[in-house]
Amino acid sequence: MKEELLALIEQGKYANVRKEIVEMNEVDIAQFLEELDKQKLLVVFRILPKDIASGVFSYISNDLQKYIIESISDREIKNIIDELFLDDTIAFLEEMPSNIVKKVLKNTDEETRKLINQFLNYPENSAGSIMTIEFVDLKKEMTVKEALEHIKYTGVDKETINNCYVIDNNRILEGVISIRKLILSEDSVLVKDIMEKDVVYINTHDDQEKMASLFKKYDFLSMPVVDNECRLVGIVTIDDVLDVIEQANTEDIQKMAAVKPSEEKYLKTNVLVLARHRITWLLILMISATFTGNIIRKFDDVLQSVVVLASFIPMLMDTSGNAGSQSSALVIRGLALGEIDLKDALKVLWKEIRVGCLVGLALSTVNFMRIYYLEKVGFMVSLTVSITLLITVILAKIVGGTLPILAKKIKLDPAIMAGPLITTIVDAVALSIYFTTATMLLGI
Amino acid sequence: MKEELLALIEQGKYANVRKEIVEMNEVDIAQFLEELDKQKLLVVFRILPKDIASGVFSYISNDLQKYIIESISDREIKNIIDELFLDDTIAFLEEMPSNIVKKVLKNTDEETRKLINQFLNYPENSAGSIMTIEFVDLKKEMTVKEALEHIKYTGVDKETINNCYVIDNNRILEGVISIRKLILSEDSVLVKDIMEKDVVYINTHDDQEKMASLFKKYDFLSMPVVDNECRLVGIVTIDDVLDVIEQANTEDIQKMAAVKPSEEKYLKTNVLVLARHRITWLLILMISATFTGNIIRKFDDVLQSVVVLASFIPMLMDTSGNAGSQSSALVIRGLALGEIDLKDALKVLWKEIRVGCLVGLALSTVNFMRIYYLEKVGFMVSLTVSITLLITVILAKIVGGTLPILAKKIKLDPAIMAGPLITTIVDAVALSIYFTTATMLLGI
Repeated sequence: MKEELLALIEQGKYANVRKEIVEMNEVDIAQFLEELDKQKLLVVFRILPKDIASGVFSYISNDLQKYIIESISDREIKNIIDELFLDDTIAFLEEMPSNIVKKVLKNTDEETRKLINQFLNYPENSAGSIMTIEFVDLKKEMTVKEALEHIKYTGVDKETINNCYVIDNNRILEGVISIRKLILSEDSVLVKDIMEKDVVYINTHDDQEKMASLFKKYDFLSMPVVDNECRLVGIVTIDDVLDVIEQANTEDIQKMAAVKPSEEKYLKTNVLVLARHRITWLLILMISATFTGNIIRKFDDVLQSVVVLASFIPMLMDTSGNAGSQSSALVIRGLALGEIDLKDALKVLWKEIRVGCLVGLALSTVNFMRIYYLEKVGFMVSLTVSITLLITVILAKIVGGTLPILAKKIKLDPAIMAGPLITTIVDAVALSIYFTTATMLLGI
Repeated sequence: MKEELLALIEQGKYANVRKEIVEMNEVDIAQFLEELDKQKLLVVFRILPKDIASGVFSYISNDLQKYIIESISDREIKNIIDELFLDDTIAFLEEMPSNIVKKVLKNTDEETRKLINQFLNYPENSAGSIMTIEFVDLKKEMTVKEALEHIKYTGVDKETINNCYVIDNNRILEGVISIRKLILSEDSVLVKDIMEKDVVYINTHDDQEKMASLFKKYDFLSMPVVDNECRLVGIVTIDDVLDVIEQANTEDIQKMAAVKPSEEKYLKTNVLVLARHRITWLLILMISATFTGNIIRKFDDVLQSVVVLASFIPMLMDTSGNAGSQSSALVIRGLALGEIDLKDALKVLWKEIRVGCLVGLALSTVNFMRIYYLEKVGFMVSLTVSITLLITVILAKIVGGTLPILAKKIKLDPAIMAGPLITTIVDAVALSIYFTTATMLLGI
């Protein structure tokens, strides 16, 4: 298919290209365009029918969107923007430099321009900034037949007609009804008698992650957005929510790895930006780790007399760090999914203490057998290492399990209390316990 | 609202409870039931209208589902299962012990029983196991009017009517048409003239994560599932896909923290299971870390003569571990989202080398200033530490950036090449370089 199209383009048979390409899904057309060189891309894009061109436009990368807008005529820009859903226009304009935004705004009618400006002013992560205003609104006095006719006449431009929202004369949200229910009802029934009155809605200024969790909880396909007076101003559709959810997950994973979150794709981010996003946390953690080093320096007489103790430092540090990271990752994820709540702090603590004891006992037993019997390390040193391991694993589980909850309690993002930071904290604890135990057991 | 309901239940005014509760969203009813004690829960559940009861049933926890099925009559079970969509029935039965499954199967008619058995046989993470068979199928010779009438008569029991699938007489999938397009088209138009012929579909045995990525790519609300002969056998709806996506993210985060993935919620998992899920990786990593310890033992003469070297081990281990974890987390996430491909291995390598140089230079400069000027450590030791830091950070970035891709290449899950494993590998590298540099620079 792709090879065929490429051959047709090579031969300049653009009429055939057009015939083939309009049969394809818009996402696939966009992907195909991404792989063409820029000259051919422009030719192919220009032969697409208006409605398909705007759909394809919303799926291509920001770089190419910019290139296309820079290259095509004002009239072509107007055609694309007219056909584009408002939320896609906003999403695209938010990523463009100001000269492109100006060029686009110049080519839209005054009403759209006003709307775009209003939307561009919603806070970046708010529901308002990703809602669309292309939705179907009904009045509750309508009959099913009237409602369906209203949809038939106004629905062409709407992003979704699955759910229709019922408003009063002041645009106050009063109910919701699915297209399914309308179709399956008798013509003469009144909308108000079959609509759902218990509508779940969000405010334009609500956070997108709150919105995403409502979508997940209620299995919605779309959700109404209201202003402070409870007037319906837009809807959010689930395809956009999916992006919000994946973005939130990406940010959590980045934070958990001590990287400053970023929306840019890895391969498209330049090296300086990547380095900048990583250096802050590395510096903080490096400085913190030197305090752990100071613990060793305080005990250098111990180390000097029993130098073999040094060789267990990596194992103790790694194991306690890993034990703590496991707990913190599970708790951070539980908090993100709403499965763990602030009020569960004590439950988590109690669970982690018990898990820590079990895991710690198993690990320190295996460790003792290995170093005493296999590596023939002295009994007291083997005992020192194993006791330290047991205590630090339990403490690591406690620290890893509770710090994310504490972070949330003081309104910090729990995701920063993950592996890297937990490891640094737990390392210091592990070494203190190690040398104290050594001093006691080895009588140094 | 909730307090009101509780008061009504306390007073035994169940008629009023019923009147209030049917106005609520099924998800909220389910959540309300979860908070009641078991006796009252059963009473309230039994007064729910049949259709609401089954909806609510699909949203409550497995424990309560089990309790309800154990407590209610065969006739009530039949009512619930009859109203439940098949995919919800399957999802529920998959979590139940065999005595409950038998009790349910006994109360379904033969046809449903056969279907349930067939569905329970699809592999656990396949598209088949979460698809539903309640979908609308049309014939391409139908007119729009006939199609809409067909939907009106058969649509009541369907899970979604947003997309209708067009099949031939052998049930081979031929096209798809949205309810929106049907409503907005003239009555006399033929379905085949307005349907999309380029249908994206999946096979019953396809992996759910593949399916999820198609949903994300194309912004679908539902997707057809076919058997090996391309016959339409079911559809998957986006609400179920959302769960698959969140589950996949949870599993990735668990694996990245060296925890065996599990679908159970943290607070509902018992301590023994939690411990078992963590111990394997901890053991493997503990044993691996002892090899790092052996490196120190090999150089104990170096350590003996310059014992201050030991105090920089935690900082070197932590920093290189963190630097490697950052890179691996970004690459693992990029692979999961499809932003990074196997063929990008060299691009990633080159990016990480450059980022590593930048970050490494910055860190080792800061480190040198700090320990030489502030902590007054000797010049050669300061130099040894800083040079080691520079080299290990670069190597850590290379290891962290490329191992996930290599893992994918040999069909392992990239997510295991995350923080814990990378740290263990990088630690060994860091210590080898450290002591080699020390031997050379300090002339020991």
